[in-house]
Amino acid sequence: MNKNFNASVRVNSKGHLEIGGCDSIELAEKYGTPLYILDETMIRNICREYLESFKKYYDGKGLPLYASKALCCMEMCRIVNEENLGLDVVSGGELYTALKAGFPAEKIHFHGNNKTVSEIDMAVEAGVGKIVMDNLSEIARVDKAAEKFGKKVSVSMRIKPGVDAHTHDFIRTGQIDSKFGFALETGEAFEGVKKVLEAKNLNLTELHCHIGSQIFDIAPFVAAAEIMIEFIAKIKNELGHTVTELNLGGGFGIKYVEEDKPVAYEKYMEAVSAAIKAKAQEYGVPVPYIYIEPGRSIVGEAGATLYTVGSVKEIPGVRNYVAIDGGMTDNIRYALYGSAYTVINASKVDKEADYKATVAGKCCESGDLVQENCMIAKPCDGDIIAVLSTGAYNYSMASNYNRNPRPAVVMVKDGESRVIIKRETYEDIIRNDI
Amino acid sequence: MNKNFNASVRVNSKGHLEIGGCDSIELAEKYGTPLYILDETMIRNICREYLESFKKYYDGKGLPLYASKALCCMEMCRIVNEENLGLDVVSGGELYTALKAGFPAEKIHFHGNNKTVSEIDMAVEAGVGKIVMDNLSEIARVDKAAEKFGKKVSVSMRIKPGVDAHTHDFIRTGQIDSKFGFALETGEAFEGVKKVLEAKNLNLTELHCHIGSQIFDIAPFVAAAEIMIEFIAKIKNELGHTVTELNLGGGFGIKYVEEDKPVAYEKYMEAVSAAIKAKAQEYGVPVPYIYIEPGRSIVGEAGATLYTVGSVKEIPGVRNYVAIDGGMTDNIRYALYGSAYTVINASKVDKEADYKATVAGKCCESGDLVQENCMIAKPCDGDIIAVLSTGAYNYSMASNYNRNPRPAVVMVKDGESRVIIKRETYEDIIRNDI
Repeated sequence: MNKNFNASVRVNSKGHLEIGGCDSIELAEKYGTPLYILDETMIRNICREYLESFKKYYDGKGLPLYASKALCCMEMCRIVNEENLGLDVVSGGELYTALKAGFPAEKIHFHGNNKTVSEIDMAVEAGVGKIVMDNLSEIARVDKAAEKFGKKVSVSMRIKPGVDAHTHDFIRTGQIDSKFGFALETGEAFEGVKKVLEAKNLNLTELHCHIGSQIFDIAPFVAAAEIMIEFIAKIKNELGHTVTELNLGGGFGIKYVEEDKPVAYEKYMEAVSAAIKAKAQEYGVPVPYIYIEPGRSIVGEAGATLYTVGSVKEIPGVRNYVAIDGGMTDNIRYALYGSAYTVINASKVDKEADYKATVAGKCCESGDLVQENCMIAKPCDGDIIAVLSTGAYNYSMASNYNRNPRPAVVMVKDGESRVIIKRETYEDIIRNDI
Repeated sequence: MNKNFNASVRVNSKGHLEIGGCDSIELAEKYGTPLYILDETMIRNICREYLESFKKYYDGKGLPLYASKALCCMEMCRIVNEENLGLDVVSGGELYTALKAGFPAEKIHFHGNNKTVSEIDMAVEAGVGKIVMDNLSEIARVDKAAEKFGKKVSVSMRIKPGVDAHTHDFIRTGQIDSKFGFALETGEAFEGVKKVLEAKNLNLTELHCHIGSQIFDIAPFVAAAEIMIEFIAKIKNELGHTVTELNLGGGFGIKYVEEDKPVAYEKYMEAVSAAIKAKAQEYGVPVPYIYIEPGRSIVGEAGATLYTVGSVKEIPGVRNYVAIDGGMTDNIRYALYGSAYTVINASKVDKEADYKATVAGKCCESGDLVQENCMIAKPCDGDIIAVLSTGAYNYSMASNYNRNPRPAVVMVKDGESRVIIKRETYEDIIRNDI
């Protein structure tokens, strides 16, 4: 590990990994493993960086919405609310969590390619700030729900701008071949806009786009923003309706391994703000209020997962399996996408990382690996292994495969720690069995 | 769908898919969607087929153990127990479930490549029939637990026989490059046996091997069985210890799509029994008591998942996305392995399957697809889509990604239905949030 991997982790005087001022070995002892750790200071700082960049480059006329699918729990909703961000939810479950945590409904955007009727009812009744239309079927459904609850509902529309963000096939969403949103080039988006404008109980104030995930390049974001302004102008000119808000989605890349070079958020805001202002002037439309939807970039690098080594299996000429007490149940991203992670022997960060390890989970499945052939300090039974940058899409995608209980999530700050999601018990596992 | 896809499903007079004598559309209305269905008759019949094949070809001197990782819940444990099978568990959670369901501990084998100390304690204290040693670290750990509880523990050892079953990379486990077990060709297995024999509180009665999953060929099973008998002979000759039981693992392929041609279980037993008897005679060792560990083949084809169509998005010249109200949260196997499934429009099984559909889940992720370019009867909003052969590794691998609640599991039999796992509620989702 580079000793300045990110703001969250460092090596302490015992040669142990320290996160948020807490010794990871002590955390493992106190709470057990596997264990998710989150650095509260880092999460709050990133929220503030996003808000600052809006002030600096866009006169503060916008709001970052935390994309809660990255990690949704009541405490994350509270923190994001305290930091004055809005929230992007994609299901009834995420909406329920946010409302239970006291998140103001009017600052919530409700997304999803297939919202159920009961989810739509829930969102309309709660009075969420925006429901983001994904498809033609949904427009009528939301209009009907609005009528049922006697409300006028502010809606957005998810548009496929046709921008390809050059990232992993599975997590690429900007192109026409996507299950999400209305295609621009086929005329579907324009037809959708007409349909929304015709709906009695809907108020189209916003357009939305999302071009992919884990992107390290500013250019595709700028291209998408420009295309969206053009479309806003077309709607104004041909339909006489002014869309006043633009949601540019998320997808900002984070550092999983040394080679990842994320763009500073304010560089992104600087470029995109300039492009939006220039295009708005060129097309004669008002400069829109903007939203962005960072999820991974707020919580990803702030997280780490701790595991205990159960055995080391050295197969001469083949590889070394280091067996940990978690795996694909708490982090499925390597099995699913082949995602790279930085792995360290948290018990021996001061020792040279000269041992090539394949970190294998405890599930009864050969594909249950967290990382292959990574370099760590030589481990032995009982050592604590840390996988870094696991704050996003780890707990949120966790399963009970093999009926393994899901780990606890512990928030650390200034040397203090507290549980924000309790570890599952065996009793939890059988709770719904009859 | 071939109208004789398997014993469990048929088309009824309304043109609806029928499972276990129940109209799938009525099940969807009664219990909601997404919904897992299991055909009890089929599950019980397959258990009986396995037992019958043991009687017919091996004088009944063996026991099939249901590999509960395929689908573990209290009711499955009860059914398997009623059918006089044993059980293979791979974690404390599965063991807990089995014990709570009243499964006799002595008929349980405890597997896993990295059993934790607390799991080992739990297994020893409960008195499971066999703990299957995976690695050198574990031998000492189980010996210590046995001493702690004042018990003599019967153990097995997982051996890598070096047989490659020609199946998907991720689910291949017979070769030397595996996180599971002791390698035969490096001498590791023999060293392991010596270590077990030296342990004061362990009694080595069994050897175990497992060569892969979803296998359609008898030959690799026969090869593995022969190699294991050779190793039993080596142990007898060189160490003077007679291993009396042989566990041949699981891996029997099932029918996901028409092209899959599973081997009849009794054909497998016929060939393997003959090979074991011949080799035992050749090497002068007693014919062992045998175990096999079918999981997928007991519960896989007996299952189906029902979904409701929320929207159909036709992208001209590209593809047709059919959005369902479940997805990778309840069936991650397509996203994870590219697994093939048979998909049908359960509302219109009597109509021609002439519509090419990509079945997309409701998760906020492009990779959330259940199947691509499959042929179904043209769907419209509200139709019920059934995915067949989802009994194994669907519920068991399910997640709360996007905080979607996991579906209920309903058992059907002779036209009657009953919930065996309750649908999760939003309250369940936030239960451990602080």
